[in-house]
Amino acid sequence: MKGCVVLLSGGLDSATTLAVARRDGFAPHALTVAYGQRHAVEVRAAERVAASLGVVEHKVLHLDLTAFGGSALTDAIEVPKDRDDEAMAAEIPVTYVPARNTVFLSLALAYAEARGLRDLFVGVNAVDYSGYPDCRPEFLEAFERLANVATKAGVLGESFRVHAPLVHLPKKEIIRLGLSLGVDYSLTHSCYDPDERGRPCRRCDSCLIRLRAFEELGMADPALADG
Amino acid sequence: MKGCVVLLSGGLDSATTLAVARRDGFAPHALTVAYGQRHAVEVRAAERVAASLGVVEHKVLHLDLTAFGGSALTDAIEVPKDRDDEAMAAEIPVTYVPARNTVFLSLALAYAEARGLRDLFVGVNAVDYSGYPDCRPEFLEAFERLANVATKAGVLGESFRVHAPLVHLPKKEIIRLGLSLGVDYSLTHSCYDPDERGRPCRRCDSCLIRLRAFEELGMADPALADG
Repeated sequence: MKGCVVLLSGGLDSATTLAVARRDGFAPHALTVAYGQRHAVEVRAAERVAASLGVVEHKVLHLDLTAFGGSALTDAIEVPKDRDDEAMAAEIPVTYVPARNTVFLSLALAYAEARGLRDLFVGVNAVDYSGYPDCRPEFLEAFERLANVATKAGVLGESFRVHAPLVHLPKKEIIRLGLSLGVDYSLTHSCYDPDERGRPCRRCDSCLIRLRAFEELGMADPALADG
Repeated sequence: MKGCVVLLSGGLDSATTLAVARRDGFAPHALTVAYGQRHAVEVRAAERVAASLGVVEHKVLHLDLTAFGGSALTDAIEVPKDRDDEAMAAEIPVTYVPARNTVFLSLALAYAEARGLRDLFVGVNAVDYSGYPDCRPEFLEAFERLANVATKAGVLGESFRVHAPLVHLPKKEIIRLGLSLGVDYSLTHSCYDPDERGRPCRRCDSCLIRLRAFEELGMADPALADG
């Protein structure tokens, strides 16, 4: 069985990506970064998801991106609430964390190369997403190109591949796919601004996109159940 | 004055790079990564160098790359000693840390974007170096391309630039340049395998390359003075 590294945040998309990697016959090594995010509770969700779906190894790296700040997720900036589609589409939101996915994929690359693995899985999504530049296919292509000149393995001709199986799927289809693969979405956490007990706000972009997708499927979101 | 981010390891090359950034009129923000390196003593050298040359801000980030291992600098692998030119040139050495400069440049990019800066300085060198893939111009070009699709600033048309002023210089010329800019090399640390008191081994590739360059200049290496 071929190994791979899966970036696992603990959210809906990365949980589904882990299930896809398994479906595709990979033995997944999961990597979670505790980066000082406002919603640090997602790290515990990542641990639950990894245990539930099964991984070869789960690494949780600590990296304090609040030292840089510049995002509502890592700084004293308010998380936008109750935004409609138009507002969400208007601009890259303040929840964008500078170069976050570049840092995360770099760490996944380091992990993969150290373990002799060549396949990286990341749950980015360019359809029902939040306008983040580092969730687009052109970003993934540029990273793959970089990986192959940056590493010993790449120089020796063993290509790295970045898999983003959700990149072109609407959120509804991601959930449908995950359910068919046995993902338990009650274990996941997506909210950017949970309360002190870790409960989702149901009003940030991340909650709203997810709530609507479950609604479109005629289901209640098992992680965002009312009251 | 335009700001920039300088990756500062505490070694000879990064100290020189910081001096070049200042010479070129930049107000430098220094970034050091304490990554669990065998020669963690270099982090203190980075602090001395930053204080000596002057920076706007110096961030030291902690990131435990020993969780991945796979290098003589982050794992229980012996650092090669007493290698001649032929041995050094024969292959990428075990002191290569998987994807390290990709991770470091990604962090520099995150720092720069969070501070509204667009210029990154890195002291990589492709002449008297150790055969690392992530010290070559093609790596730097691929990273620059990535930076401009990965970030909000890039998408908005504000290009990032990766400066590697030493990339084509032999070590001797790097030292000559640094001396002309007032770099105090006694403050720097390059050795991969210092003893428990932080004293350089004088036998690893990094020590040997540096010792020879000073010798070629008819000088004693101020950081590697004989016992």
